[in-house]
Amino acid sequence: MLKHTIAEVRELVKQWKKEGLTVGLVPTMGALHAGHLSLIKKAVEKCDRVVVSVFVNPIQFCPGEDLDKYPRTLEADTKLCEDAGVSIVFAPSPSEMYGEGQMRTNDFLTYVIPPFFYVNKLCGKSRVGHFDGVCTVVNKLFNIVQPDYAFFGEKDAQQLIIIKKMVKDLNIPVEIIPCPIVREESGLALSSRNKYLSENDKKEALVLSKILNNIKLCYKKGITDIESLKETAYTFLNEHHDLEYLEFMNQTNLDEVKIADDNTRVFIACRVGGVRLIDNILLGE
Amino acid sequence: MLKHTIAEVRELVKQWKKEGLTVGLVPTMGALHAGHLSLIKKAVEKCDRVVVSVFVNPIQFCPGEDLDKYPRTLEADTKLCEDAGVSIVFAPSPSEMYGEGQMRTNDFLTYVIPPFFYVNKLCGKSRVGHFDGVCTVVNKLFNIVQPDYAFFGEKDAQQLIIIKKMVKDLNIPVEIIPCPIVREESGLALSSRNKYLSENDKKEALVLSKILNNIKLCYKKGITDIESLKETAYTFLNEHHDLEYLEFMNQTNLDEVKIADDNTRVFIACRVGGVRLIDNILLGE
Repeated sequence: MLKHTIAEVRELVKQWKKEGLTVGLVPTMGALHAGHLSLIKKAVEKCDRVVVSVFVNPIQFCPGEDLDKYPRTLEADTKLCEDAGVSIVFAPSPSEMYGEGQMRTNDFLTYVIPPFFYVNKLCGKSRVGHFDGVCTVVNKLFNIVQPDYAFFGEKDAQQLIIIKKMVKDLNIPVEIIPCPIVREESGLALSSRNKYLSENDKKEALVLSKILNNIKLCYKKGITDIESLKETAYTFLNEHHDLEYLEFMNQTNLDEVKIADDNTRVFIACRVGGVRLIDNILLGE
Repeated sequence: MLKHTIAEVRELVKQWKKEGLTVGLVPTMGALHAGHLSLIKKAVEKCDRVVVSVFVNPIQFCPGEDLDKYPRTLEADTKLCEDAGVSIVFAPSPSEMYGEGQMRTNDFLTYVIPPFFYVNKLCGKSRVGHFDGVCTVVNKLFNIVQPDYAFFGEKDAQQLIIIKKMVKDLNIPVEIIPCPIVREESGLALSSRNKYLSENDKKEALVLSKILNNIKLCYKKGITDIESLKETAYTFLNEHHDLEYLEFMNQTNLDEVKIADDNTRVFIACRVGGVRLIDNILLGE
């Protein structure tokens, strides 16, 4: 069930392919919550065999980010996967994935680099190099597992769009299955980083979904001018909220949108209690 | 035999895989000569089915290079492949591979970028971006054809080393088979660019293999100091030769070498009659 080496995973997958079974991959950084579980369930439903990768990928963390304190709960993650019908939890060490230290810089490692147009906005603007690390590790996982389907959450919408673009540009033989955001009853989008929030932060964190829902409400009422829609957000913000961005983009190609339509996705990033949270909503749903 | 679309190739390869056949890929830019033919023969020998791609890849040409006048001889190439027992000649259009115009810049296209340490030397120094284009297109071809084996000539030794590194770094499930340089009786390494040479240029072009052979001779006699070995080259050069580089590197990781040993590969690039030619030799053979 729990595998730590590439060779073990390859061997099992090879066997499955021989038997004509379909393979699903759910790439994660662990600390699995109900959001991940919804991806896993979808994968188990759709595929004969499912691999969940649990790997806190060092090369997608930027300087000053929370690589060391990122939550690691492998035992619980494995249990959850087992109960959900997953075939392999693939939890490699950083050296299994990249070799030792210096290997992880672009001086010594081949990188997969998403297009500048897709990266130079939203989260990519503050997290320089983040999506290079994401694309590189996902590409590696695709080559290791060779899945027929791979499952990504719409929570990380920019990531999902960039991964889809990578698959298209590099002709990767995998179908990407997007999975909707899972929310607490309060509206808060599930995230492994929610663990860092105090009870009060959690209340303040509702500002993200509140802003998005309100924008959608206004859009449904007929407001399509972006500046007017943005203005509706500001009434929700207080001194607990450090807004990083609130952007309106075409949901396929991340073109900036001047007049909202059903294909417009609204993206928000905001720090609450020092924790960086993101959320998004599609207007035409 | 001759296929122009990705979909056709995928369909045939899928069928082969179902039948349990092994697949070989020989990526080329066409204008096939006896050098390519040696790769193709090796592939046909080793694999149940062989795909030869013929694609003059625009994104690996640098500004001012010979993209437009690069020789294109698809009819003859196809005939040669057919006679050699190749199953598919895959000759896509640039738009089949990349979509239209703007798609080919790193603003709008996902790139596979080899490590700086491997690129910032030899041909990579003057041909900025060249190996980014090579790695990206080879990665695409690997994803389209999903070969068990891929065949590359040692003529482009830096390219071969970089491709091997990419396969390792990205865990690509393909085995790279290196194939030795094929030479004219005179010693001139075969290259599609030899077509640009006049009769007299062709004579002057022998300087590359002469220098390499002489260095190897001196090494075999016991000279291992790089500076001394380099000095032996200068006696061969005249006003017809514009030497770009003569370098000694470890043949696996492209580390610079101070004292030559059996793993040292000597690389040379020299313009003759305005045509840029390259050649190389392994000292321990």
